[in-house]
Amino acid sequence: MLNFSKGEQGLLPAIVQDQASGEVLMLAYINEESWRRTLATGKAHYWSRSRNKIWLKGESSGHVQLICEIRVDCDADTVVFKVEQLGRAACHTGHRSCFYRRLSADGQELEVTDSPVFDPAEVYQK
Amino acid sequence: MLNFSKGEQGLLPAIVQDQASGEVLMLAYINEESWRRTLATGKAHYWSRSRNKIWLKGESSGHVQLICEIRVDCDADTVVFKVEQLGRAACHTGHRSCFYRRLSADGQELEVTDSPVFDPAEVYQK
Repeated sequence: MLNFSKGEQGLLPAIVQDQASGEVLMLAYINEESWRRTLATGKAHYWSRSRNKIWLKGESSGHVQLICEIRVDCDADTVVFKVEQLGRAACHTGHRSCFYRRLSADGQELEVTDSPVFDPAEVYQK
Repeated sequence: MLNFSKGEQGLLPAIVQDQASGEVLMLAYINEESWRRTLATGKAHYWSRSRNKIWLKGESSGHVQLICEIRVDCDADTVVFKVEQLGRAACHTGHRSCFYRRLSADGQELEVTDSPVFDPAEVYQK
């Protein structure tokens, strides 16, 4: 159903979007196994490129992403996961979205547009 | 400002989102040169992996994407372009979004959820 052979090392990008607000929360990568587990469990699984392993999003933080809808693009090499984000935040920094910085009008700097909703030190210490 | 060294072959994913509706329209890739041209012109430029060249989105179809806002993620290796999509559609199939297919509830098929807003044969013939 997905064209995993098109991705570098069999990885395809998954755009994660908040089902209710439409906010883009993060981008992560899936391989076939994480895709299979996502469909089987209804919880977003990715491939962690830094840790080189399957990653159930929220396995450390408890901030699991429940799959509401999956959309597939014209080339079947990118997906959108529309999710309900548990714990209110997707980003390891404690921000709701990983895209919490906006390019300034003069293109010279990144402006932080919101405050963290959790303290990473507390959440990841557990 | 962006971490191009983190991407395969210096390419980073750009998620393209409709500024008004929040709909995810497509995903494409940027390199440093396309990033520079996007900032300089206010029109989305990408790197075409199939044609191996800089690509002004809309150069054939006229369906240019005007940049309204750019957001940058926590790792500075993915961006969101919030755009005004000229010509009403981003996808080369004539659909408004490249993500015009939804995974069915049983996970067995892809359901087309909308109709094309233009005829590709007509638009790309010009």
